[in-house]
Amino acid sequence: MFRVTDRDEKTKARRGLLSTAHGDVETPLFMPVATQATVKAMRPEQVRDLGFEMVLSNAYHLWLRPGVEVVEAGGGLHSFMGWDGAILTDSGGYQVLSLGKDVKIAPEGARFRSHLDGASVFLTPELSIEIQGRLGADIAMTLDECLPYTAERDAVEASLRLTRDWAERCRESHRSGAQVLFGIIQGGMFADLRRWSAELTVQLDFAGYGIGGLSVGEPRSLTLELLEATLEHVPRDTPRYLMGVGDLAGIAEAVALGVDMFDSALPTRIARNGSAMVGTGRLNLKNARFATDGGPLDAECACYACRNFSCSYIHHLVMTKEILGFHLLTVHNLSKVSALVSELRTAISSGGVEELLRGLRLVDGAE
Amino acid sequence: MFRVTDRDEKTKARRGLLSTAHGDVETPLFMPVATQATVKAMRPEQVRDLGFEMVLSNAYHLWLRPGVEVVEAGGGLHSFMGWDGAILTDSGGYQVLSLGKDVKIAPEGARFRSHLDGASVFLTPELSIEIQGRLGADIAMTLDECLPYTAERDAVEASLRLTRDWAERCRESHRSGAQVLFGIIQGGMFADLRRWSAELTVQLDFAGYGIGGLSVGEPRSLTLELLEATLEHVPRDTPRYLMGVGDLAGIAEAVALGVDMFDSALPTRIARNGSAMVGTGRLNLKNARFATDGGPLDAECACYACRNFSCSYIHHLVMTKEILGFHLLTVHNLSKVSALVSELRTAISSGGVEELLRGLRLVDGAE
Repeated sequence: MFRVTDRDEKTKARRGLLSTAHGDVETPLFMPVATQATVKAMRPEQVRDLGFEMVLSNAYHLWLRPGVEVVEAGGGLHSFMGWDGAILTDSGGYQVLSLGKDVKIAPEGARFRSHLDGASVFLTPELSIEIQGRLGADIAMTLDECLPYTAERDAVEASLRLTRDWAERCRESHRSGAQVLFGIIQGGMFADLRRWSAELTVQLDFAGYGIGGLSVGEPRSLTLELLEATLEHVPRDTPRYLMGVGDLAGIAEAVALGVDMFDSALPTRIARNGSAMVGTGRLNLKNARFATDGGPLDAECACYACRNFSCSYIHHLVMTKEILGFHLLTVHNLSKVSALVSELRTAISSGGVEELLRGLRLVDGAE
Repeated sequence: MFRVTDRDEKTKARRGLLSTAHGDVETPLFMPVATQATVKAMRPEQVRDLGFEMVLSNAYHLWLRPGVEVVEAGGGLHSFMGWDGAILTDSGGYQVLSLGKDVKIAPEGARFRSHLDGASVFLTPELSIEIQGRLGADIAMTLDECLPYTAERDAVEASLRLTRDWAERCRESHRSGAQVLFGIIQGGMFADLRRWSAELTVQLDFAGYGIGGLSVGEPRSLTLELLEATLEHVPRDTPRYLMGVGDLAGIAEAVALGVDMFDSALPTRIARNGSAMVGTGRLNLKNARFATDGGPLDAECACYACRNFSCSYIHHLVMTKEILGFHLLTVHNLSKVSALVSELRTAISSGGVEELLRGLRLVDGAE
């Protein structure tokens, strides 16, 4: 289901084609996050028009609300949310730990109270696979345990054994069909444990591999070091997905190391906080200096927001909490990510990834 | 600047063409409300695509934030907000009374504290005209005093004298140019005072006439009675604008009495509360019965929301407070108003307004 079509000469970057039940998608790719079955502040076709072919949605959130049966009755997630591109669902492992209350992890599964109504719920690897199957995702992820980046070696080791067992149970309960299943490699901040996790996961022979638990607060140099150590142990012909990375520099550097897929709520979340991605930095549109700035967010950008509206207007919309302001910043930020990913694909084919990376660093340091 | 092009045979409804500095607009017309220089949850061209040619914006709000000088520096309100259609601004009279704190009305003007930061501000008829001129509205409104509908006869009489004096000062300070000025007729719930206000205002010879202070809580039959009494005293060849009415039945009944223009925040405001206009009633999408309703909001409607999404999905979006939910309901509600106004125009030309009114009442009584 994955074919590498081009390789950059000087880096490990590669370009590829990922076949899904909802069409072939080009890699490297970025998935906007549609937590609640909507990319926040966007119409689905606007997401498509920005060049995105796959979005990520959350099994955890949709399981708790509106419920799998509702999405199923709506014809599955694609039909329910009006998105005819590909969808990857995450398994819920990350959300259980970050949102659930009174979380108790046991070999059988994770018991916790819902962040919505406090109801006691129990998520097992088998249930996660069932949920993702019934949602109709094109790519499902195994249920994993995500530890905070401060986790000690012993805790990480124990967690990896659990994640490995859960991965195996996910694989066993996953029905073959249009949906494929990706495993997830963890291992905290320990290069050797990352390698061990990669080996354990690859042994189970998944269609692709997520790399989780990176970019969670550690210094960038360590992220890249651990990422490189991990990727050495992932088969070259499988898609590699770096979970939760959505800043421009982070995407570009990881592509150069051989990553194919990304997701992150960052571009859409900071938009709703009033921030625009410019260069590899950010502008805070709440800043009073934008009140009378008649220029666009980004003179280099040709997105709908930059073509039609001034910083002054967007500042006003952000200060008055107008929905159009959040929409315009979301359009802009997603455009920036889409443009970068597209440039990376072109650069891979022309052998220019290193040069592109240098150019990105040059414009770093915006506000 | 206004020409009646067709009259319905059995009612007083008329169809016309209103010339503005931003193009000719057809009447009867409805103006979506762009309080903060944006029709909430909409892109400007989406408003245009729904068939609207004019929006209403608020001098009071834009004066306090972002400030007239900011809008002026942005090339005026049209350029600032990216709207190339016509704009009518209200004078601020209504907002002073409804939003201002410690409001003191004196012959010279209205002193109050800003609802934003408590700053003491003073709005005079001359200042309101200056603000609306600098914003660059196509149609400005005179500064008036709006009383609650419980106001006693004596209070209404005194208020009408003040509003008449303010109207005269507005007219005197209004510079002729591309912008035209409408007077506002008040008079509370008293038919004879409405007539008196109409006479006083018409004597000042405005380009058009707003009818304010109706549909503020009184029974519908009284609204129509007072409206009819007022309209008898407004010249037939001038545009008549019923301020603040945006429900479908209210628009249709007022058109039949000879009203040409409407504005109301109702369609967009109830959308953000989760309500869809259907028939001449409303559906509350928060209602649990929509959780599994796979049908559209309105089987009769061909809007973007009804063509692409189910009630079940919109219920989910409303429950999760997703921006797309507010956007879809706004699109739907504005579509319904646009469709009605368009049907009314056609019905006027074909002499079918009475029949259209009967049809509307038949589908009344939705939730």
